[in-house]
Amino acid sequence: MKYSKLFWPIELKGNVIYILDETKLPSNISYIKVRDYKGSCRAIKEMKTRAVGQVLLVFYTFLLTVRKNKKNKNILPLLQKVAKAINSTRPTLSFKFMTDMILGWAAAGKPLEQSILGFLEMLKGRRIKQAEEASKLILNGDIVLTHCNISGLMPLIGEFCRRQHKKIKFIVTETRPYLQGARLTAWELQKAGFDVTVIADNMVAHVLGEGKVSKVIVGADHLTKNGDIANKIGTYQIALLAKHFAVPFYVICPPPSSFASGKDIKIEIRPEEELLEFCKVRLAPKGVKGYYPAFDVTPSELITKHIHLGVGR
Amino acid sequence: MKYSKLFWPIELKGNVIYILDETKLPSNISYIKVRDYKGSCRAIKEMKTRAVGQVLLVFYTFLLTVRKNKKNKNILPLLQKVAKAINSTRPTLSFKFMTDMILGWAAAGKPLEQSILGFLEMLKGRRIKQAEEASKLILNGDIVLTHCNISGLMPLIGEFCRRQHKKIKFIVTETRPYLQGARLTAWELQKAGFDVTVIADNMVAHVLGEGKVSKVIVGADHLTKNGDIANKIGTYQIALLAKHFAVPFYVICPPPSSFASGKDIKIEIRPEEELLEFCKVRLAPKGVKGYYPAFDVTPSELITKHIHLGVGR
Repeated sequence: MKYSKLFWPIELKGNVIYILDETKLPSNISYIKVRDYKGSCRAIKEMKTRAVGQVLLVFYTFLLTVRKNKKNKNILPLLQKVAKAINSTRPTLSFKFMTDMILGWAAAGKPLEQSILGFLEMLKGRRIKQAEEASKLILNGDIVLTHCNISGLMPLIGEFCRRQHKKIKFIVTETRPYLQGARLTAWELQKAGFDVTVIADNMVAHVLGEGKVSKVIVGADHLTKNGDIANKIGTYQIALLAKHFAVPFYVICPPPSSFASGKDIKIEIRPEEELLEFCKVRLAPKGVKGYYPAFDVTPSELITKHIHLGVGR
Repeated sequence: MKYSKLFWPIELKGNVIYILDETKLPSNISYIKVRDYKGSCRAIKEMKTRAVGQVLLVFYTFLLTVRKNKKNKNILPLLQKVAKAINSTRPTLSFKFMTDMILGWAAAGKPLEQSILGFLEMLKGRRIKQAEEASKLILNGDIVLTHCNISGLMPLIGEFCRRQHKKIKFIVTETRPYLQGARLTAWELQKAGFDVTVIADNMVAHVLGEGKVSKVIVGADHLTKNGDIANKIGTYQIALLAKHFAVPFYVICPPPSSFASGKDIKIEIRPEEELLEFCKVRLAPKGVKGYYPAFDVTPSELITKHIHLGVGR
């Protein structure tokens, strides 16, 4: 199986974490080097990596901390400091589930290196399984619409479809303002040899109305106990439109958080410049305000099927 | 009353038509000079001007042709040639209603200069009236969401609200890929002193869900006999979402065309580069396809109220 670079965008080699710089894709494939947890937190805040990349970065950051402090007899306070810094980077994302897990291992005296590496190995297997599960929902001839980027899972879903002798095509929303759809998903799907068409975020109802889409598959950054999800801004309206046009709406989910419902999720508001400027070109005149909620919440009832990771709670 | 430059973006001085170059706004306020109908058609195709600018350009192009050919005893064949060229510029827009009107005046032997200037004067008055009608639908404290650009009418609506002592705010979708919302509407509203916030096109459901929008007002490029409209791509999904959230959806309409319904409207597909490139930066890798329908059709039943121009049929 060939994987997209986005499937596993973080590596730890020696005492250096290599982070695929997703802000530079697709024109540049370059890696940022990080040597401590502060560097990791900065990369998360600046969205150098996202989605699964951020999850991997959390684990590799703890792994790095453990490796660099092998002689430290009581590493727990240091790990707690790292956890606190990570958890304050982005409000909508549930890193706490992961940091709690690692702190739990440390408190219980478990071997941390093996526990982390074992978890990451299991995560990899479960993600592949998740892509396979999603592929089973797709029929020969389907056109799949997706939004944002699901960290290498979309080409993997396509690859499973190929093995099942199903021919499929993709429509990708460009996903303003960060353009994950155009820059990342379209790129990795095209590299994997799939037919992919980019549309603007405002064309969804029109292409659904034209009957051009047979399935919607998106990811999620946060899954609550009742099945609500938070995902990249724009997901909610695609779900509403898919419902209107009776197109199935599938979600590739992370492990559920401890939140009861989407109402408990705090939506991160990003700096307005990220919306109002593009490649240093100002899109709206100075003095005009911008509002950039990075995520929105899609209620469970709009989701045809949750494709669970099967890791965690 | 102070008008936005977009309210009347075309002027004819002597034998030169001055076209406000809307592709350069808001960073540059510059005018393109056009000296014949071919230049006008090129400006329309390249979207240097749009909406009412295109309507005005059609009339001024005929006026220019008439002025330059005063000694021509049978100007009708020339005017027919001009009409044909104009009508083939953009498939979704109904210039034919205008070109037929002018050819009708010519065939009936009416004084063309006076007829055209008289029509334009009436159009100006009716547009101001239309803005006043729209302002009456707005309540004190309303937040009005708009998409694309209605050629200077939005600040005029705001101005009428001011006179009626209503304080209102605006939310403007950026309107990819041409960014009329961010570049034009936000600009003219800010210049007129209004509180204006830009959002990405994929944030509409989220802000409606937050209860941030009390009215939606959009324009239309085409109105059919049954009340369906074609407007800038993205309008349709805003209408569907407004319906879902029970927010009134008002449309500032042009005169109706002869088409029975929106099904008869041919949607213009623009070059994919206009979507996949921005300021010469490629947004998606080479080989990825782009789909850019410039308009979509919003069915009449999603429209709370049509605000008619009251000109034409």
